[in-house]
Amino acid sequence: MKESEITDLVDGVVSGDRKAIAQAITLVESKKASDVTLSEKLLESILTADGSSIRIGISGPPGVGKSTFIESIGQLMVQDGNKLAVLAVDPSSSISGGSILGDKTRMEYLSRDEQVFIRPSPSGKNLGGVNRSTRESIAIVEAAGFNVIIVETVGVGQSQTEVFDMTDVFIVLLSPGGGDQLQGIKRGIIELADILVVNKSDGDLKSFSRNTVLDYKNALKLLKPRTKDWSVPVIACSSLEKIGIDECWESIQNFQKLVTTNGHLQHNRNNQQKKWLLKETRQGLLDALEKNEAIQDELRHIQANIATERGSIKTKAKGVVESFLGKLGNKK
Amino acid sequence: MKESEITDLVDGVVSGDRKAIAQAITLVESKKASDVTLSEKLLESILTADGSSIRIGISGPPGVGKSTFIESIGQLMVQDGNKLAVLAVDPSSSISGGSILGDKTRMEYLSRDEQVFIRPSPSGKNLGGVNRSTRESIAIVEAAGFNVIIVETVGVGQSQTEVFDMTDVFIVLLSPGGGDQLQGIKRGIIELADILVVNKSDGDLKSFSRNTVLDYKNALKLLKPRTKDWSVPVIACSSLEKIGIDECWESIQNFQKLVTTNGHLQHNRNNQQKKWLLKETRQGLLDALEKNEAIQDELRHIQANIATERGSIKTKAKGVVESFLGKLGNKK
Repeated sequence: MKESEITDLVDGVVSGDRKAIAQAITLVESKKASDVTLSEKLLESILTADGSSIRIGISGPPGVGKSTFIESIGQLMVQDGNKLAVLAVDPSSSISGGSILGDKTRMEYLSRDEQVFIRPSPSGKNLGGVNRSTRESIAIVEAAGFNVIIVETVGVGQSQTEVFDMTDVFIVLLSPGGGDQLQGIKRGIIELADILVVNKSDGDLKSFSRNTVLDYKNALKLLKPRTKDWSVPVIACSSLEKIGIDECWESIQNFQKLVTTNGHLQHNRNNQQKKWLLKETRQGLLDALEKNEAIQDELRHIQANIATERGSIKTKAKGVVESFLGKLGNKK
Repeated sequence: MKESEITDLVDGVVSGDRKAIAQAITLVESKKASDVTLSEKLLESILTADGSSIRIGISGPPGVGKSTFIESIGQLMVQDGNKLAVLAVDPSSSISGGSILGDKTRMEYLSRDEQVFIRPSPSGKNLGGVNRSTRESIAIVEAAGFNVIIVETVGVGQSQTEVFDMTDVFIVLLSPGGGDQLQGIKRGIIELADILVVNKSDGDLKSFSRNTVLDYKNALKLLKPRTKDWSVPVIACSSLEKIGIDECWESIQNFQKLVTTNGHLQHNRNNQQKKWLLKETRQGLLDALEKNEAIQDELRHIQANIATERGSIKTKAKGVVESFLGKLGNKK
């Protein structure tokens, strides 16, 4: 793509052209040096989100039914006149990526809806597991007029935190479990949640589900509320039996109303931008290391002798860092 | 601690003194500049693992019963004359850390056994979620004569991959689930596993368990085997009813025999060292950024104006990186 085409691409995105949106996201995902320059130009032109959108993070362990949940709640969102974008982020596979049965057919109804834009998981690696460009993809779909943005990720851990850091409301999906479940509840899973969903509350698992809801309600009592005037609901949902989905959508809307009115949404977005700046800076620095041929040679040399050369890894690494910063000047 | 005391500390570690081991680990976990220098000296002195130990990674979602599993299998390991060290790594909570009910009483028997050393999860943050010092803790406990090392982590995601990258055999614990489970099986969970355990195969969950074992066996057929001559076993376990634990310990020993004989273990450890070097180098560079006061001021200034100043975050971050590398010299 040439620089002159960026203006057309921006026009396409802003007018909601699906092809242009997809192309723009591909551009910001690209790591080619020429694309990076173009994508900066693109992002400079479209960064004008007015704050009327709602960015929803949806997290949960593999197999908890995130896709079917999104398929169900997404239909309610569209029925209410919203334009929905679903961005999937899936760092769960470090070797081959993706789910065994493939992602394409996971959201059958939504993927056929004109008011919905679905972007499957990119495979790029980065600092924290979540694709570095997801925040930029959010900016693009918002510029294109999508006002409800779902970012789906596998919990637990880093990727969950990252999606938390780019969304306004965070929904955690959990599976029904036995009564001894509470023992294993880690703070990390529930303390990020604005809304907790016990999914697959159907069939054989219905009785487990009731206990699980109670367990999590009790566990939540032990935590300090994160958002003023908001008590985290625990909702039993079944995408199959259409239970709890509407309640969940209602909770999202209530939360949005609350945080928009009390200023928390904008405050939170500003803080997210600050964090993002630090993250991008760190990543940019690592990229510079990666591109320095002399340093890469030095690293390869050490690696080739790693089994025989004495000395701890930490000390060896320290030498490389000093060499990199030293090559650039006289920093001690 | 003073430099002269390091020799005593090394002696203490090598003679297996528990207090010295704990102190050495605390030292490598410390981020104080003076401690970092001392810990380098310590690590230079003790890095002489002879490869006769086995490093076991144990991963699984919160609530799957990792601790009780380790409590059970650990007793078998000790009965067979081994010295066991358990290092826990738990990045699941990004805000407050740890599990709600606390870690102290989780491994009641093992924590009273003289042949066992347990180190609970450190709270430090780093590049990838897993504490940066865990590899060094492994070196320390091996120098102290522990020959079976368990590193426990919460899956999925980054922390799982990191523990995978520092162990010889990787065990993934899963919960029994319904028959529709397969749909949600992500490659990432099972492709790292050398041994798959369907835990909590007891009580109400027994029937689910049988299906889950079959599901995972089928799913594994779709994957290319990772280790030559090793087919990943799927074992139903119950710590409560003492089912499958001995089979699991036997599998670990068989795996160790195989990879020691065919050279895969040493080859794998060398590769891990190479990766570790890259990781430490990157982290060292980020630390240098962190310590540069002028750059930190620049970042704070941008953050203070983040809501009003135009321009994309990416472009702003790029400016900071150029400023950092520029301050050190003339790199373009």
